[in-house]
This record gives sequence, structure tokens and C-alpha cells, in this order.
Amino acid sequence: MAQKPSIPKGTRDFSPAEVAKRNYIFSTIKTNFEKFGFQPIETPSFENSETLMGKYGEEGDRLIFKILNSGDYLAKADATLLENRDSLKLTSHISEKALRYDLTVPFARYVVQHQNEIEFPFKRYQIQPVWRADRPQKGRFREFYQCDADVVGSNSLWQEVELVQLYDSVFSQLGLGGVTIKINNRKILSGIAEVIGASDKLIDFTVALDKLDKIGEDGVKKEMLEKGISETAIEIVQPLFNFTGTINEKIEKLAQLLANSEEGMKGVNELQFICDNVTTLGLQTAFLDLDVTLARGLNYYTGAIFEVAAPKGVAMGSIGGGGRYDDLTGIFGLKNMSGVGISFGLDRIALVMEEVGLFPEAVLATSKALFLNFGDKEALYSMKAIGKLRQKGIKVELYPDKSKIDKQFKHADRRGIPFAVIVGESEIEREEFGLKNLATGEQQKVDFATLVTLLQ
Amino acid sequence: MAQKPSIPKGTRDFSPAEVAKRNYIFSTIKTNFEKFGFQPIETPSFENSETLMGKYGEEGDRLIFKILNSGDYLAKADATLLENRDSLKLTSHISEKALRYDLTVPFARYVVQHQNEIEFPFKRYQIQPVWRADRPQKGRFREFYQCDADVVGSNSLWQEVELVQLYDSVFSQLGLGGVTIKINNRKILSGIAEVIGASDKLIDFTVALDKLDKIGEDGVKKEMLEKGISETAIEIVQPLFNFTGTINEKIEKLAQLLANSEEGMKGVNELQFICDNVTTLGLQTAFLDLDVTLARGLNYYTGAIFEVAAPKGVAMGSIGGGGRYDDLTGIFGLKNMSGVGISFGLDRIALVMEEVGLFPEAVLATSKALFLNFGDKEALYSMKAIGKLRQKGIKVELYPDKSKIDKQFKHADRRGIPFAVIVGESEIEREEFGLKNLATGEQQKVDFATLVTLLQ
Repeated sequence: MAQKPSIPKGTRDFSPAEVAKRNYIFSTIKTNFEKFGFQPIETPSFENSETLMGKYGEEGDRLIFKILNSGDYLAKADATLLENRDSLKLTSHISEKALRYDLTVPFARYVVQHQNEIEFPFKRYQIQPVWRADRPQKGRFREFYQCDADVVGSNSLWQEVELVQLYDSVFSQLGLGGVTIKINNRKILSGIAEVIGASDKLIDFTVALDKLDKIGEDGVKKEMLEKGISETAIEIVQPLFNFTGTINEKIEKLAQLLANSEEGMKGVNELQFICDNVTTLGLQTAFLDLDVTLARGLNYYTGAIFEVAAPKGVAMGSIGGGGRYDDLTGIFGLKNMSGVGISFGLDRIALVMEEVGLFPEAVLATSKALFLNFGDKEALYSMKAIGKLRQKGIKVELYPDKSKIDKQFKHADRRGIPFAVIVGESEIEREEFGLKNLATGEQQKVDFATLVTLLQ
Repeated sequence: MAQKPSIPKGTRDFSPAEVAKRNYIFSTIKTNFEKFGFQPIETPSFENSETLMGKYGEEGDRLIFKILNSGDYLAKADATLLENRDSLKLTSHISEKALRYDLTVPFARYVVQHQNEIEFPFKRYQIQPVWRADRPQKGRFREFYQCDADVVGSNSLWQEVELVQLYDSVFSQLGLGGVTIKINNRKILSGIAEVIGASDKLIDFTVALDKLDKIGEDGVKKEMLEKGISETAIEIVQPLFNFTGTINEKIEKLAQLLANSEEGMKGVNELQFICDNVTTLGLQTAFLDLDVTLARGLNYYTGAIFEVAAPKGVAMGSIGGGGRYDDLTGIFGLKNMSGVGISFGLDRIALVMEEVGLFPEAVLATSKALFLNFGDKEALYSMKAIGKLRQKGIKVELYPDKSKIDKQFKHADRRGIPFAVIVGESEIEREEFGLKNLATGEQQKVDFATLVTLLQ
């Protein structure tokens, strides 16, 4: 019995059209990464388990795909663990390698391992797949690409300024104008925690505040009280309930609110520097906004936090994010190596571009012409022309079989190939080519030079 | 204690310089694949185990990396297998997914699964990593890229002609002139087996014959006798011991030798068609040669067999290979779908190009200029220029910190950045830029328009 072919849930096959579209996005991102001075690295798909485990929290550890040791992996496995069927503890005995969960930890490992070869500050980008044993759902996959750009080895806030510009540059070039680059700062969040006197309630606080648009001020306050945030605290942060206006007005409000928090004021000053310079330099099509509810990556970001929202009117979560982390490489023994980076959410960007219809037609890059096949003699004559056309960089094909001409025309049509070239005996005699425009039906006899011109 | 970072044996990190070189090869191969009408697909990194297992022989099964099931994978495991520590049999109970071992089986699975969406003949290319739990050694890795181009759905020998041209086109464009594209045919091997009256000894026969250069005619004959090939048989194939001359002369010798083998004569005719047409159409820099000892992929190739040898003088095994297979998709339930394909050995091609010094300097694509950082005011002035330069596609960078100028110059030097741009107070006043050529030491003051011209 033949197997009915399928692929694991949460994974995808990509057809030529899908690959072409994804490559268009990759290539736009890469071009911009390089324009901004970032250089590519690549790391192995699997790492030693100890490199990855314990870096993403308990939930993360669970979602890491483990690779079974080769050979007789049970030979030395602990008898008690086997007997007790202790899956969790047995894992490290029968598996030493695991698939990459993100690009950040492998990058930290890379920096530490190659620190003597790297010239710091090191601006690297990395575009590779990662794997997570997550429950698959719409837009969430078990294998997906991450596109990261990071700088390590410099505290300069000019990096944050450049990363905002980089987002703007990529999305503008993709035709995705009007994205909002939301910015916040870990130190401002710490300041707010100080002010409300409850750093353990910070997440509850930001989650509640984030619902302001949906459930209104009273609703938010009710939720905050329920979560154990005191009425006094809520009163102090009253300005955050009317947190509107320009970025500068928002920063001004924060400066007043956090005046007594040293950490908070550091955050205010950092934000001020970044926003002032981004504003002075200008953005092409993106908007910059300050969002104090932005609290992603709270356990490792130490300074700026970024998130990119799709243009208004497109229902889609964040299409990018990032931030500054002061001690990423510390886990591998290299201290004081501040880093800052951003990431592009390829799958969501592709969905948005598809929805808005932003992929150029030319992305597909099919052949320019299909030479029809009337037999070996005609095919040889065609192949001579095809060889010369290809040397000029023109994509052309010979239909491989002497099939019915209808079938060959249909093939060109289904493949989206715009021209058919017809070579019969009379064309060979006169050293000509019949060129048919498959969109208009127009047909003409041309010599080789004209053929080149028309297909170029 | 911080972990000392390392990567699993047989895997590699790729530095910016290495990625750039590999991308240069990938991109040359891709351009040519597309010029010849091939379209890209991508398949998941891991497949359901049953898709892969049993397709590569027992040794192959052993070398496939298996992924441990998520969660409580031992819960339903067979008690006896656990007790007996039967690693081999337990595997299918605790692992349902496995990393791709090559691109051919996933391609066959793809074709069958998507047969209703595919327009045949289907010319696809695929450039993705594969994984093998092989013992790592020089030039052999546990993670490496395969670059495959295949056509399925046509028996036409014009495909073989085109694939030879495709090899020639890629290697010529890479500057790797003088490769030898060796060709053979499975049917000729079958014919030889018929003639020597021992199809089970075919591999022993070709392996022995392949040593002709090294151990001479007598040595080869001795080995053949030892392997149980009869003296009569060896006498019959005597022409193969003087198998020299042009391809046509070789084909002529085969035609005489295999005159009584129907299968063998089919192979001769196929070879004749391919070689005649390749010769008539001409190759740019590659040589075509007929090698009857070529027996790769014997268990699945049914027609042409290809292998590419590096240019003479470069000690390296084959840098490419391929062939025709008549029933690749049969294992997944789709019969009569003939295919033919070739593969490029990226790692070996990279090694050869490194050895011969064929990578263009421009491959590295570092920034064109580093703007030195004299402080925030100067940096802002620089960033205005940098933004405009980047919009023109020119790669430039700002040194992020106001470090000692020596250190900044050294950074540009170590990164291989050719120009430094110096912006101090006087430059800002006069709306100028100091441009220093770091190779010659030459320095000049220029306005923005001139800066653009000089960096473009």
C-alpha cells in the first residue's frame, strides 16, 4: 500500500509562488539590513541542549524540539527513570541536541564563542527558521523564519535611532506605509512599578491599562483594584489615563509622573533622546508613538522596547518587535556586552501584504517564453536560440515533449508564461521564429535579433 | 558557573565572510536554475517519520535524525520494549517526526501531495539544509545544504541535454572552468551485467574497473576474478579495458559490446542522443565524458547518471551528481511519473573556489564608509547625510560611540570599510564632509553631492 503523503501539523510546504513572495520580503529586508551596515551570520539548526534549555522559562523548555540521540540511546539510560516512565527527567539522558527556538540565544552563544574573531560593535543580521512545539493555530506555526538585526558591544542610543529608521526603511520599501513603531522603555516601566509601589504587579498593571480603549477608564480601574493595585497607586498614575498628545507631550507627562524615580527618569531621558533625533531626522512613511503599556520581553529587555503595528485598518497583531538587553551574553560568561535588536515577523508581514495586495507582479519570475516542441529537429534549432538567450540572462524554456500543440499552449498559459515561440520547418528554412503574445494572441515572424529585443 | 559555549559536532557557525561567499554560490546557482525555467519550492525541515524511513536503506534509516515527541512521550510506550531497552524498536513509539535526510524524498512527497495544483512537466529547484547523523569528518557535516534541480512528468531526453548545459552554465559563471561532466546510463550498466552474466556482481565489477588507472589491467582482472566474475565474462568485456577516445568512439565500442542486449542498446541510444545534442549545441567551459564505471544511485536511477569532477589538478571528489529515475513518486502512490535531476555539492564547490581563489572581492559587501563619531551634535549632522545616502542605496554607517578617534579608524580598518567620513564643527559650519580613503590615506573636503558621487 502506498502511503498517503502528508506533513507534520504546524509545518508548511511552499509552492513556487509562495517562495517567490517570501523571497521578495526576505530580499527587501536583507538589502536594508546591509544598507544599515549589518552583516549576516548563520548558526546550526540544532544546538547542544544545555545551550538552549533554561533560557526561555519553563514553558519555553517544554516547547523546544529535542533530537533523539543516535544509536543505542537507551543503553545507558537510568533504570529508575525508565521504570517510572519519567519522560521529563529521561529527556536529558536520551537527547543531547535540540532545534533552535529563536535566533537570540544562538547569537549570544556565537558572540561569546567567537569573541576573539569579532570586531565590536558587531552589527549582525540573521534570517533562519526556528522551531517551537507550540499548539498550531492560525498564523502560528511549528517551523517559521525569524529575521533579526542586532548590535552588540555599544551602549549608544544612536543604535535605537537607527533601528527605528531601519523599520521605517523596510516597511516603506515593501509599500507597507503607515505602520506604527511603538516605543517604550523598561526603565519607565520600572519607574511606574516604583510609583505604584508594587513591582510584582507591573504586568497586571500594563495589561489592564492596555484595555483603556475597550473597557474605558472605570473598567481599567476596576480591573486594577481586583488585581490588588491600591487606590492611592491608581490615583498617582491618573495622568496615564489621559495619555494622549504628541510624543513630546507624553514624555513631559511621564517626566512629571516619574520625577522622584531615578530609574524612571533615566528611561524618560533615553526616550527623549531617541524620539527627538528620530523626529529631527524624519521618517519616510512610518509613525513613531510612545506606548507605556508595551511590556514585551520584560524579563530580558533593560532599555528601549519596540513593537510595530500594521497600518490602521489591517487587523493583525504586531509585525515586528525588539529592544535593548544589557546582559545577553552573561549566561555564556561574557559580561558587560550591551545589545539592542529588532525582529521582523515574516509570516504576518506576508499575510498583510497579501491582504493589501502589495506583491509586485514581477515577483513570480516565470520564464519569458516557452519554445513549443514540434520534434527533435525543430527542438535542436530552438535549443540553439535558447542557449544564446539564456547567456543574455533571458529566461526561456523548451517544452520537453513533442505533445499536441494545444497542450503545449495550455502549459504556457497555466504557468503564466507570456510568450510562445513557434519553430516549424518553414521557420528553420528562413532562419526565423514565430513569436506569439499569449495575452493578446498577436503573432509575428521575427529574426533572432528581434526575438532578443522583444524578450528582453 | 557560566557555560563554555560550543556547538554540536558536525555542525558549523558561519561568519559574515563565510555567509557572503556561500550566498554568492547560492545566488549564482539560483540565477541559472531560473534562467533554465526551474521554480523554487520549500518543504518543512522535519517530515513525518514514515515519509522518510525505509527510503534510504538500513544505513540511511540509522542516519536519520529523529525528533522526540513532545510532552509525556513515555506514557504509552510499550513496557516490554522499555524493559528490554530496545532502542531500535522503541524509536517509532517515542518519535513521530524526523529531520529531512535529502531533498529528493520530500520532493517526491510534495509532488504526490500537490499533484492537482502542479502543472506538469514540473521543473522545480530546492536549496535547503539536510541533516545526517554521519560520523563527522573533513568535508562531511551533519548539517549541510543541498541544491537540487529536477524535472518530473516528462521522459524527454532534452532534459538531460539541458541539465548538462545547466551544469556548464553554473560552473562557467562561477569561474570554475574545466569541470568534467561524466555521464553514464543505468541501462548500459544493466547491459554489462547481462553480458557478464552476473547482475548481482555489477557493483564489484564497476568498482574494480574504476581502479584501472591505479592498479592496471592485470590488477583489475585479478580483483574481478577474486570477486567471482568469470574469465569468460572478463574476456567479453575486454573492450572496456581500452575504453579511450572521443565520446562517439566510446559509444561505438559500447554498441558493439552490447549489441545483443536490448536494454543495453536502449542505453546506448539514449547516450548517443544526449551526447550528440550536447556536442552540437556546445558547452562554454565544461567537458563531457562517458564513464562506464559511474554507478551512483544504482538503486533508483533508471536512465542517465551524471557526476561532475572538479577541474584537473584540484584534488576533490565529485562536486555534483544526478540522474533519471522512472518511479520516484511510486512510493507515495503516483505511478508513471518519470523524473530527472541534478544536484550541486555546495560545500565542496566552496572549498574548490577558496582553493583556486575564485571569490570576487566585492562578495563581502561591507559598508562603503564609516562616519566617525565626534559627539551627538556631529552625529546628528552625520545621520542626516547617512539617511540620504542609504536612500540612494549606498551602504554607510555611523560609529555608534564617541570613542577615541584611533579606535574608530581601527574599527573601519578591521571591518574592511574603505572610507572614513570626518565631521567636526568646522565641517558642520561649512556644510562639508572630510572624506578619507583608508587605503591611500588621501583626505579631502567635499560637499554632499561630491560625497555621493565618490561613494557610489
